[in-house]
Amino acid sequence: MAEKKLVEQITSMDEDFAQWYTDVVKKAQLMGYSSVKGFMVIKPYGYAIWENMQKELDSKFKENGVQNVYMPMLIPESLLQKEKDHVEGFAPEVAWVTHGGEDELSERYCVRPTSETLFCDFYADDIHSYRDLPKLYNQWCSVVRWEKTTRPFLRSREFLWQEGHTAHATAEEAGEFTVRMLDVYADFFENILAIPVLKGRKTDKEKFAGAIETYTIESLMHDGKALQSGTSHNFGDGFARAFGIQYTDRENKLSYVHQTSWGTTTRMIGALIMVHGDDSGLVLPPRIAPTQLMLIPIRTSEEIVTRLREIKSALDNTFRVDIDLSDKRPGWKFSEQEMRGIPLRMELGPRDLENGVCVLVRRDTKEKVEVSLDEVEDKAGEILEDIQKNLYEKAKAHLKSHIYDAYDYEQFCEMAEEKPGFIRGMWCGERECEDKIKEDTTATSRLIPLKEESIGDTCVCCKKPAKKLVYWGKAY
Amino acid sequence: MAEKKLVEQITSMDEDFAQWYTDVVKKAQLMGYSSVKGFMVIKPYGYAIWENMQKELDSKFKENGVQNVYMPMLIPESLLQKEKDHVEGFAPEVAWVTHGGEDELSERYCVRPTSETLFCDFYADDIHSYRDLPKLYNQWCSVVRWEKTTRPFLRSREFLWQEGHTAHATAEEAGEFTVRMLDVYADFFENILAIPVLKGRKTDKEKFAGAIETYTIESLMHDGKALQSGTSHNFGDGFARAFGIQYTDRENKLSYVHQTSWGTTTRMIGALIMVHGDDSGLVLPPRIAPTQLMLIPIRTSEEIVTRLREIKSALDNTFRVDIDLSDKRPGWKFSEQEMRGIPLRMELGPRDLENGVCVLVRRDTKEKVEVSLDEVEDKAGEILEDIQKNLYEKAKAHLKSHIYDAYDYEQFCEMAEEKPGFIRGMWCGERECEDKIKEDTTATSRLIPLKEESIGDTCVCCKKPAKKLVYWGKAY
Repeated sequence: MAEKKLVEQITSMDEDFAQWYTDVVKKAQLMGYSSVKGFMVIKPYGYAIWENMQKELDSKFKENGVQNVYMPMLIPESLLQKEKDHVEGFAPEVAWVTHGGEDELSERYCVRPTSETLFCDFYADDIHSYRDLPKLYNQWCSVVRWEKTTRPFLRSREFLWQEGHTAHATAEEAGEFTVRMLDVYADFFENILAIPVLKGRKTDKEKFAGAIETYTIESLMHDGKALQSGTSHNFGDGFARAFGIQYTDRENKLSYVHQTSWGTTTRMIGALIMVHGDDSGLVLPPRIAPTQLMLIPIRTSEEIVTRLREIKSALDNTFRVDIDLSDKRPGWKFSEQEMRGIPLRMELGPRDLENGVCVLVRRDTKEKVEVSLDEVEDKAGEILEDIQKNLYEKAKAHLKSHIYDAYDYEQFCEMAEEKPGFIRGMWCGERECEDKIKEDTTATSRLIPLKEESIGDTCVCCKKPAKKLVYWGKAY
Repeated sequence: MAEKKLVEQITSMDEDFAQWYTDVVKKAQLMGYSSVKGFMVIKPYGYAIWENMQKELDSKFKENGVQNVYMPMLIPESLLQKEKDHVEGFAPEVAWVTHGGEDELSERYCVRPTSETLFCDFYADDIHSYRDLPKLYNQWCSVVRWEKTTRPFLRSREFLWQEGHTAHATAEEAGEFTVRMLDVYADFFENILAIPVLKGRKTDKEKFAGAIETYTIESLMHDGKALQSGTSHNFGDGFARAFGIQYTDRENKLSYVHQTSWGTTTRMIGALIMVHGDDSGLVLPPRIAPTQLMLIPIRTSEEIVTRLREIKSALDNTFRVDIDLSDKRPGWKFSEQEMRGIPLRMELGPRDLENGVCVLVRRDTKEKVEVSLDEVEDKAGEILEDIQKNLYEKAKAHLKSHIYDAYDYEQFCEMAEEKPGFIRGMWCGERECEDKIKEDTTATSRLIPLKEESIGDTCVCCKKPAKKLVYWGKAY
């Protein structure tokens, strides 16, 4: 049957999750490959999801007083080197520009891997007085990191992101803002993407290069691997000291500013796929879906098409709705709507039209329901709400059922081997144990929860007194 | 007087237009300089204008069926070289990446100066059948061109833009689409930016590298210089042949696609400044202004601030409105509102409040009018409409009064020397005359009008038979 074809082209997720992911990315037409090795082409459907993400996040940023700006794409090597930890973290993975036109440059420039140094350079010049604070800037742009192995949306040599960079008068204010932006990310994931997250701090080992504290939200993919989904960094006054960003306070005293940065990327599209997708393809939560409702004629008679056009224009102000009028068979159209994860479809055939009804089919459960044409708006609204809720609940249940507690090292290693998910384990605070755990199991410390948790007194690895509970896991 | 200070910091436009421009760009806080030579920092106010431009243009593109995508930022040298004219046009001014991380690349990559080659490379892989056509793609991104001399917004080593790239089944369709997008640009300039434009074709000399036809909109700055403000290119099947972009038509015959590209840039911000600005700073048309109405308390008593807050929330759905509650003096706030070109301000003092009135001051004419607080919404709406119209009419009159007709070469050279503006002059069609005119006068051929015009039979330069009327001018 033709309607099976599209689904048949993708691998089942239980058989080979990595291959399933690649298949969905391609068949749902989210991205394409290019001749530029390790770089991706984001196709219209993938980009439309990104635009919705941008719209939502950008309005939240603005509610928090954040303003958008644009900084140069290139960073002179000397500028990158100003903060010691930062350059060590990034220099090995940047692309270097050595020639401008026909001339060799007197100094190499790197294509920005992140823009802390540019913002600092700018702030040093632009901040003078307490009246200039806080600076709450953000930019939407692309960055380049020369990764050795790449994977669509998850790890590539270039990705799109937003990077917020703020400067504050006090350490307290910077600390508070770091957490506030983490909360913005967490709310976006839970309410819009329907992805539950764990919130916490990174260990020193996993911190951002140059930060005194890195906060993270981590989500759990369908295969039980963790995905770092957004980070927010508190820099203290480290960058300010390296770049000389000082202001005179109300008492006319010179002080260094305290800074933060925070970012999310096109990687979030990868999270959507791997959290909600199934063997028929992508499943998008209605609040982020570029098309929420696809109208599909069972026969493309003039009468039906006219009626669908009327329905579309009646619903256009309420939903993101589209009609599939391509010359494909209905079954193929269903399969495409499923592959692309469009939350809801309406089927309308000649007999339906006679009876003044249509069939609504939801993507998440594939449940069908016959609905009177007069009630479509209300009913579709209800179902979309329910899909949003259902996807979140399902992902939440999956997360909850994949958090395990390890009380000793044998148990820890067994779990890491056999139970995909997060492992809660106490930790002594030493880098040595983190390294050993990673070497033995490939699991890394994902986060220390914001609200302290405890399941024992001794480190799950070395048995010395424990300082913190850590969520461990294998990660993308 | 404090309120004079900000204005005193800018040069008068008649005294030194170039300095006036730089002063406005800085004092209106549109951009900042960075340590990266030739690159600019777009500050929040400049970026907010750009965001409004994006919003307007993007929705027009989408109405025309255009979809947004994202292509890699880097182009392998071999890909750039595939189309002969194109590489000749761009290779001398690109930035070259030679190292990724610690490794030297086997092939140099350039940072995209424009993305025709990437889109073509993608289309060659993605287009197979007539069902895949047309492809109407656009991307919003930044590009790098290694300019020797730079100027904020007008010419810099990196700028933000949109670049549309389309592929069509027939030459007719591509030709039609090229002009359609030119019209989108022209409408945007006239209706939103309040900038009248001339529409036309470029001569072969001024065409885009690789195009068979380049269309342009040109606007006239206050100093009488032209600004190329948006271009739309018809590539015919030249790129398709170079990249092998073929499709099978309904008769199962292989054909090359026909392509277009079209772009506008942050340079449009430069146009806004130089068309509408005056000696008090920027003047923004209401339809593009990030803030349309600034509420300014004459005294920051609780009563007045409360009332202003009420007024703001009453108007928030109708206008982009803000309150200036900074601890500066009212006169300074007026001067800032003027410098930033905010179209309208409302002044509210204690006596006004008693009398239930306020004062509205429009930026373009500086006219003041006392208005009852009950009528603010209606009155402000009327005035903003009138400002939009007035700015357009003024710019239109300026354009009309700066178009001159030259009938012989002596007259042409005199006009080019003494009369800033466009010169209409007949042209034989030979590159030689274009070169001579440029050498003698620095004026270049700006465009051949879409609707043919004529003021004589012989070339204004060589006196041989004329083929076309050309608008000549000195340009940014």
